[in-house]
Amino acid sequence: MKEKVAIIGVGMCKFGELWERNLIDISLEAGMYAIFDAGVRGTDIDGMVIGNMSAGRFTGQEHLGAQAADIGGLGDLAAYSVEAACASGGAAVRQAYMAIKSGEHDVMLVIGSEKMSDVTQSEAMNTISVASDFEWEGMFGATFPALYAFMARRHMKEYGTTEEQLAKPTVKNHANAAHNEWAQFQRPVPIEVVMNSGLLADPLRVLHSAPITDGAAGLVICREELAKKYTDTPVYIESSEQRSDTLALHDRQSITTMNAVVSSTKAALNEAKLDLKDIDVFELHDSFSIGEIILTEDVGIAKKGEGGKALDEGITEIGGKFPVNTSGGLKARGHPIGATGVAQIVELALQLRGEADKRQVDGAEKGLAVNIGGTGATSVVHIIGR
Amino acid sequence: MKEKVAIIGVGMCKFGELWERNLIDISLEAGMYAIFDAGVRGTDIDGMVIGNMSAGRFTGQEHLGAQAADIGGLGDLAAYSVEAACASGGAAVRQAYMAIKSGEHDVMLVIGSEKMSDVTQSEAMNTISVASDFEWEGMFGATFPALYAFMARRHMKEYGTTEEQLAKPTVKNHANAAHNEWAQFQRPVPIEVVMNSGLLADPLRVLHSAPITDGAAGLVICREELAKKYTDTPVYIESSEQRSDTLALHDRQSITTMNAVVSSTKAALNEAKLDLKDIDVFELHDSFSIGEIILTEDVGIAKKGEGGKALDEGITEIGGKFPVNTSGGLKARGHPIGATGVAQIVELALQLRGEADKRQVDGAEKGLAVNIGGTGATSVVHIIGR
Repeated sequence: MKEKVAIIGVGMCKFGELWERNLIDISLEAGMYAIFDAGVRGTDIDGMVIGNMSAGRFTGQEHLGAQAADIGGLGDLAAYSVEAACASGGAAVRQAYMAIKSGEHDVMLVIGSEKMSDVTQSEAMNTISVASDFEWEGMFGATFPALYAFMARRHMKEYGTTEEQLAKPTVKNHANAAHNEWAQFQRPVPIEVVMNSGLLADPLRVLHSAPITDGAAGLVICREELAKKYTDTPVYIESSEQRSDTLALHDRQSITTMNAVVSSTKAALNEAKLDLKDIDVFELHDSFSIGEIILTEDVGIAKKGEGGKALDEGITEIGGKFPVNTSGGLKARGHPIGATGVAQIVELALQLRGEADKRQVDGAEKGLAVNIGGTGATSVVHIIGR
Repeated sequence: MKEKVAIIGVGMCKFGELWERNLIDISLEAGMYAIFDAGVRGTDIDGMVIGNMSAGRFTGQEHLGAQAADIGGLGDLAAYSVEAACASGGAAVRQAYMAIKSGEHDVMLVIGSEKMSDVTQSEAMNTISVASDFEWEGMFGATFPALYAFMARRHMKEYGTTEEQLAKPTVKNHANAAHNEWAQFQRPVPIEVVMNSGLLADPLRVLHSAPITDGAAGLVICREELAKKYTDTPVYIESSEQRSDTLALHDRQSITTMNAVVSSTKAALNEAKLDLKDIDVFELHDSFSIGEIILTEDVGIAKKGEGGKALDEGITEIGGKFPVNTSGGLKARGHPIGATGVAQIVELALQLRGEADKRQVDGAEKGLAVNIGGTGATSVVHIIGR
């Protein structure tokens, strides 16, 4: 009775500040690579969903679904976009998953994309802030670096997390991205450089923070029985869960845990009938390094308060027990908002297919991605298996 | 095997220029009325989808799903928004339909909403234009009134459609809205007034055009077997189809027909195993009066070119063979972009439940809604039955 959903194609464009390209251009590149990878024809695709947060503000174009179907030459199909702030990409993957499971669609193209560098930095920061509770946070200058700084400071106070530990996700993720040809920053960065980079919002520094990025990622997904027609290496979406929390950080009982991440991860493991120890590779939403530390705890890799210790022990490195952000994560792969959640699934699929080159986790069979919106008001969790 | 999806609750806020209210306020009013109407508890709802086009530009707040879940007190659930320009509402209904059919959700809240009057008229016009192919249309001043004027002029040339016929959808829809307490304009308007109203883009006049509106509409939908627990008068989504066409009007072979409407209507009738003559009541997207004329033809109520004649003959009036826009349509109920597609389904549900007061179509058993984006680049069609 239960329909399994397969991922049969993945694609990316190289993330970065892509001054010479526009949103539709990069979206189609990622989508077309996914289509080529899947070996499907355009006419096989009967639906498309785009994860995008704010093309209306960043680029002055909405109605992206119809635009991509049109310019991509995919013809007359269902095409639309989905928004859940920085979790727009993960939400788009989930929509496509439900579209297939519902029987309404056979083969879906998922594109996550965002073009952020065509506006000024201050305009970009304003637009990112509309993913917070703007009336109660952004309006008063509590931008995301400030909100995550509250979380970091509180985590340091409650659990003794150190500035050195705060720097470690960046060091790890840059080292991983050095082996990822699609990453925005493909070079390692020493811990001293991170710890001495400019302060954004004390204690958070520039190099604790994901960059402003242009980029797109794509997936082709379909029903299980169709998958074998197209590929010998399908991977499967074993579960998809999404939850929400208060939009404003100040409304939460604790600002050092993200309840929506806890509940969606638990639900996803439950649905896939897996324990955390069964998961071989993780993509966790590290828009700020404190985010990765908190998510490591909320997912269950480390006990609450011990995310810093897990970094000290190397547990989340490639070769460690629970490798996190083998792709380089948001910090080093880059964070084009709507693309991130899709790019996470691309990375997991490559890992499970054994195609992750020098960043490969040996024998990876199950992967888990957490894509969050805002300071955790939305959490989308996917478990991918082969 | 095939899962039916029931509509068990409907809600609206009164449409209009709601200066004193904000987007979340009107969204929650519509959603809460739908919840009360359904008789569900907030805790019964396990997912929410919001149809909205451009809150980021109109109101400076995105991440609407998490915000509505938070402020509405619905707790920890999957919440996100869907964008397909003026078809965002219809696309949201379709997402919820697939979410239920997929088995991932049991009871979904659908909200369509837009707050358009908090920006200047020119800013509103710019934002509406980002639903066109902005780089090739809006950028050159081809706003929607201009694009629809091309369609109207061509329709007049090809088929002899008259200025009097162009005015008739407005007269009919205002007469219908006089009996709809949620409509923005609850008064009839004589044909002379329509024909002498200010020119927007020759031959289209102000009173051929849907207004700028604030408003929200809500639905509660669930699996068939749950529906009977909550209500004695469920209606069912018998089919849901969505298609796309070129984003720019100038890329089409004909600008007097909307291919996506033709194909999605055909698919929806096919899926529901119905003929057009089985449909008792229609909601057709009349953002401009020429739009209603073209849709009347593309849906099959009139032959191509004879949409004007159908108006002359009264076929689309209440009491006629194929009543169109009993609610007042976009013209008179108002057109808060993301709300429209949801409000159409609210009207059909009321008609099928026999609760449409003085605008009731006697014995209505099946209803069909067409919600389009842009000049028809997206078309979403739903057939509702009891």
